[in-house]
Amino acid sequence: MRSYNKAILPEGFKASGLHCGIKHSHKPDLALFYSEFAAKAACLFTSNKIKAAPIKLCQEKLKNNREFRAIIANSGNANCYTGKAGLDDARHSCRYVSGALGIAEASVLVASTGIIGRRMDVSRIKKAMPKLVEGLSVSGIHKAKKAIMTTDLITKEFTVQVASAGSAYSICGVAKGAGMISPDMATMLCFIFTDADIAQRALESSLRAAVEGSFNCISVDGCMSTNDTVMILANAAAGNRQISRGSRLQEFSAALTKVCGELSVMIVRDGEGASKFIRIEVCGASSRAQAKKGALAVANSNLFKTAVYGQNPNFGRVLAALGSSGIDIDEDKVKVRLGPLNKKEVELKVALGMGKGRAVVYTSDLTPKYIKINAEYN
Amino acid sequence: MRSYNKAILPEGFKASGLHCGIKHSHKPDLALFYSEFAAKAACLFTSNKIKAAPIKLCQEKLKNNREFRAIIANSGNANCYTGKAGLDDARHSCRYVSGALGIAEASVLVASTGIIGRRMDVSRIKKAMPKLVEGLSVSGIHKAKKAIMTTDLITKEFTVQVASAGSAYSICGVAKGAGMISPDMATMLCFIFTDADIAQRALESSLRAAVEGSFNCISVDGCMSTNDTVMILANAAAGNRQISRGSRLQEFSAALTKVCGELSVMIVRDGEGASKFIRIEVCGASSRAQAKKGALAVANSNLFKTAVYGQNPNFGRVLAALGSSGIDIDEDKVKVRLGPLNKKEVELKVALGMGKGRAVVYTSDLTPKYIKINAEYN
Repeated sequence: MRSYNKAILPEGFKASGLHCGIKHSHKPDLALFYSEFAAKAACLFTSNKIKAAPIKLCQEKLKNNREFRAIIANSGNANCYTGKAGLDDARHSCRYVSGALGIAEASVLVASTGIIGRRMDVSRIKKAMPKLVEGLSVSGIHKAKKAIMTTDLITKEFTVQVASAGSAYSICGVAKGAGMISPDMATMLCFIFTDADIAQRALESSLRAAVEGSFNCISVDGCMSTNDTVMILANAAAGNRQISRGSRLQEFSAALTKVCGELSVMIVRDGEGASKFIRIEVCGASSRAQAKKGALAVANSNLFKTAVYGQNPNFGRVLAALGSSGIDIDEDKVKVRLGPLNKKEVELKVALGMGKGRAVVYTSDLTPKYIKINAEYN
Repeated sequence: MRSYNKAILPEGFKASGLHCGIKHSHKPDLALFYSEFAAKAACLFTSNKIKAAPIKLCQEKLKNNREFRAIIANSGNANCYTGKAGLDDARHSCRYVSGALGIAEASVLVASTGIIGRRMDVSRIKKAMPKLVEGLSVSGIHKAKKAIMTTDLITKEFTVQVASAGSAYSICGVAKGAGMISPDMATMLCFIFTDADIAQRALESSLRAAVEGSFNCISVDGCMSTNDTVMILANAAAGNRQISRGSRLQEFSAALTKVCGELSVMIVRDGEGASKFIRIEVCGASSRAQAKKGALAVANSNLFKTAVYGQNPNFGRVLAALGSSGIDIDEDKVKVRLGPLNKKEVELKVALGMGKGRAVVYTSDLTPKYIKINAEYN
């Protein structure tokens, strides 16, 4: 398995990105991802009960359709809490792509990120469509990855190549996410592309496992978004023997987990206002779920996060967070080790002494800059 | 019922406060509250699984004893995560009071607030005891109320007088709390004194009800403390007919709820770094518990709190918080009304349209000053 810190689209994929006017700034705000061949799709969405219109539409499409060709994604507007009109807007976005590319409307997925509760001017998407389609190319991914950004300061991209049983395939992911990042999928969009031939169920289970160990283990601010979306398209262009189970599925799963893991760490490193990257390891819990619950409670403690920002080794705040998380804990058994705080990367280790459960989560510190960004965001 | 925005100790109570050296600064850090007559006590403590030593000791005493005479409380050190030694320290504090006042050690309660995980130098308490006891007086409450403060900027005190069935009694409370304030009892100490004659069970149920509608409805930073303590002493010095049920209990309960309500609002107003006071009302929930859960989710959303600080009417963040709280919610029914943000007092009203459950919670905004305070606190 070879890894690259950049997006290299697998065989049969193209992408494109531009500014269509949804954002007030002149930054790119519209991305199109396209597969030349029919692709299988697996998607995971936010567990927030308020879901954005694009998510509702995708969930509907995923029920009835197994072949996908494109994803249209915008930043600057979440198209959420926009009612029936918003659902129509999302539908129209797909229709424009379908018309311009000559593909079935049902084969187009859609995602949005940005401000909640405001109608989106889809006429801008319609108007931009010819240029967007014209821009489709392999290197267009570098425009697309920028067009999905909101408060992100850096692009998030990662690619792995797998040589497997005489053939080779790759998995490439791009993501956005800087605030509203909480365990259950973070506020993020993540689009993953692979040319591997893989069975539908295997694709779905691999994605679930990869997300559980990556995007579901990060928290920037404990706020769960309405728009979280992870999508993978698999177009089988690599011509490998179809992956369905056994060691080849394990191999695919490991590669996908690697991509999601790297992207999730990038999201935390680029957390809004973050000055430090914090790794929290909880071991000795009575189960993995307990370890993760405890670790996330610390990751979401404002007091712990400000202490790290202030390089203030106040481990009492770690204990207070663990104690209030609801996990099994015994004051006489718990051991807390907080690494040096004057570094960019801070490590916290908690040994609960209750069992064998272990989890690692990542978070960032809470800084005045986070407040500035979110006090002004609109 | 007459109300006073200051502490006026009821009949038979005295208090005292001074600086004994637990705090590095020269601010008062040791308070003593004393009842000339045996008093009934009711207490509520943090639900954090990591509990400070004084709490463990009090819980033990409350099991075996029904008559109390004094409370010794210090700020500057939480005496938490201090193991068996910390428990001994708490025990010693009580013993010093017992010796100096000539009262049973079992009749002395104890509370601490401050930094977690550090041994407390109880020799300072021992040394200060003669002066502390000497200072006991009715007006000494104004020294005591200051000695329990940590990052508090203002003192919290409130008194009500009730004329009931030919006799009169009063209820007086003092509290501290500015950070680590979360619904389940906030990080706070609250000491309440009444000269009412009231039955043990009635005292306990009144306190539970009063706390549920006050301290359990506030949140500053969503961080639950290890030391939260609410104590009430009732010494029957008013000579009223003992309150046990019916309208006289309702009257007492209303008065106690008033005291707790006022103190809890003061805690939020004095929230660390707070620039705004936020009232969140959720109605139309399927139950009161659901309404409260939703309201607290919004109150604990960093994104909502920074939006209020920035006077940024981003009601999408309210929806995101409600949607992720786990309560029953329907996007097509929910209505959000956020009052003007350029005021010191901000009101958010959410109508869920699901049922008749209603709750009000109070919180403050999240500001750069909160971060500064907690980055530097030690």
